[in-house]
Amino acid sequence: MSDRQKTMAVVGAGVIGLSWARLARNHGWRVGITDPRDDLDALVAATFGADNPDVFASHALTDVVAEADLVQENGPERLAVKHELFGQFLDSAPEHAVLATSSSSIGATLIADGLSAGDRVIVGHPFNPPELMPLVEVVPGAQTSESTLQNALELYRALGRAPIVIRKEVPGFVANRLQVALTREAQYLVEEGVVSVADLDIALQNSLGLRWAATGLFEGNALGGGPEGARHLYEGVGAEVGKIALGTPSADPQVIEQLIEDIDSAYGTGQENYQRLLARRDERTSAVLAALRQLDA
Amino acid sequence: MSDRQKTMAVVGAGVIGLSWARLARNHGWRVGITDPRDDLDALVAATFGADNPDVFASHALTDVVAEADLVQENGPERLAVKHELFGQFLDSAPEHAVLATSSSSIGATLIADGLSAGDRVIVGHPFNPPELMPLVEVVPGAQTSESTLQNALELYRALGRAPIVIRKEVPGFVANRLQVALTREAQYLVEEGVVSVADLDIALQNSLGLRWAATGLFEGNALGGGPEGARHLYEGVGAEVGKIALGTPSADPQVIEQLIEDIDSAYGTGQENYQRLLARRDERTSAVLAALRQLDA
Repeated sequence: MSDRQKTMAVVGAGVIGLSWARLARNHGWRVGITDPRDDLDALVAATFGADNPDVFASHALTDVVAEADLVQENGPERLAVKHELFGQFLDSAPEHAVLATSSSSIGATLIADGLSAGDRVIVGHPFNPPELMPLVEVVPGAQTSESTLQNALELYRALGRAPIVIRKEVPGFVANRLQVALTREAQYLVEEGVVSVADLDIALQNSLGLRWAATGLFEGNALGGGPEGARHLYEGVGAEVGKIALGTPSADPQVIEQLIEDIDSAYGTGQENYQRLLARRDERTSAVLAALRQLDA
Repeated sequence: MSDRQKTMAVVGAGVIGLSWARLARNHGWRVGITDPRDDLDALVAATFGADNPDVFASHALTDVVAEADLVQENGPERLAVKHELFGQFLDSAPEHAVLATSSSSIGATLIADGLSAGDRVIVGHPFNPPELMPLVEVVPGAQTSESTLQNALELYRALGRAPIVIRKEVPGFVANRLQVALTREAQYLVEEGVVSVADLDIALQNSLGLRWAATGLFEGNALGGGPEGARHLYEGVGAEVGKIALGTPSADPQVIEQLIEDIDSAYGTGQENYQRLLARRDERTSAVLAALRQLDA
């Protein structure tokens, strides 16, 4: 990849789109932003300052994508909308541009279906917020070319992200599926009265969260087996632990209502409370990231 | 709790026991260590220095527990052994001492069954290594008194731990069950060829691990719902995500063999490699902990 300044075209200026835009700016990229919303110019000025020479905004999608190395689409999660948008990208973006969607649920195979150059379409699904969370799940579709995949990985790495390749378009990709798996058991344990909402959160933060921020799960399995490696774990204590019968959370609306009340009671509601939780989350996340990066440097 | 120096009796000087002992010393406690192993004195001297005035070791269990505020048992995971040990604790430990087992699988109800003062018996299950990982799962049994529970929580907090209360003696308690839930889906995704061992670990560390080191799961659900709280999530996008059909890892020995080979290939085996992985894990874990503690201070 050349050293010239890169340009990201952010299509859709919602929470995710603006976070991608901030990420790109934080890495010295130019950013073009397009969205049909009436207040687009004011929003962009409020986010990046008025007359920022490295940021341009326009209701005209074609003008914005025309200069892109990476088009990052964050529109509504509806196939027809995305199909239409990617058709316009193919008409207007430079030939070398990677055309990516942030979608968590609509794969590149469906989006590219029937388009003239579907080999350039790919999923680059971030973990919210993308400016902070390093993971990008890169999911090629049936038509996506190897060069598009490699270019996407290179662009996301240039943005300081940790992209991984998802080799099959399964619902939820990887991170959301893992989250659902753990969440279901957590919900079951609270519903069964094994543990409170607050205590489950304390447990997760002070064991698995901490562990998995520091090391991978399979890396932990390798370690858990001792010097002999993962085999020792899978044939020893791990095999026993693996036999635990997990639960299924209730579908009873009253049970779910109780859970919602428990969560609201533990963490509160309302705009001010929400902003406080959000700031706490991002501050703590940034601190963890900074500590790990300092160590890696 | 009074301010006088506390004493932990560590019963069983394996990896977990010695880690509890280091934790107690790091918090200024006296530590007594007992274990039938022949090299006990040499081991303790190697760990804490010869003639450390705050550490004493003896093959005579009764001598060691006689001075304890907290007896922390780390013997073999066999009920008969633990039953015998806790009988001796009741004969020899001070009346105010909390009698805790580190067991991950044998509850206080079974251990206390038939003992004269089973109300003093409780599970204090650490997350390995206890000197580093803050979680202690405190699990009262049917006979455990409320005062034993409260004393145990207070003692673990005095050791800088984050104890939680498990209200039912379910297999795996909470953290191991959550780990099993996520691990099963992770294993399924690798076996199905959706993602490689290494990429799954990158994904977990850079999304959920980071998130759950910084904030709780239900706290995240409260946030995910926006200012309206968790209800908005459970009735909106969360309900859709929750419908994802998760997988089940294969029980086929050939598939498991392939997984073990993939893990060994990603992370290596052997004594030197093991020590390197272990040091990396603990260094990264310590860095994350230090960053979060600095923020909380």
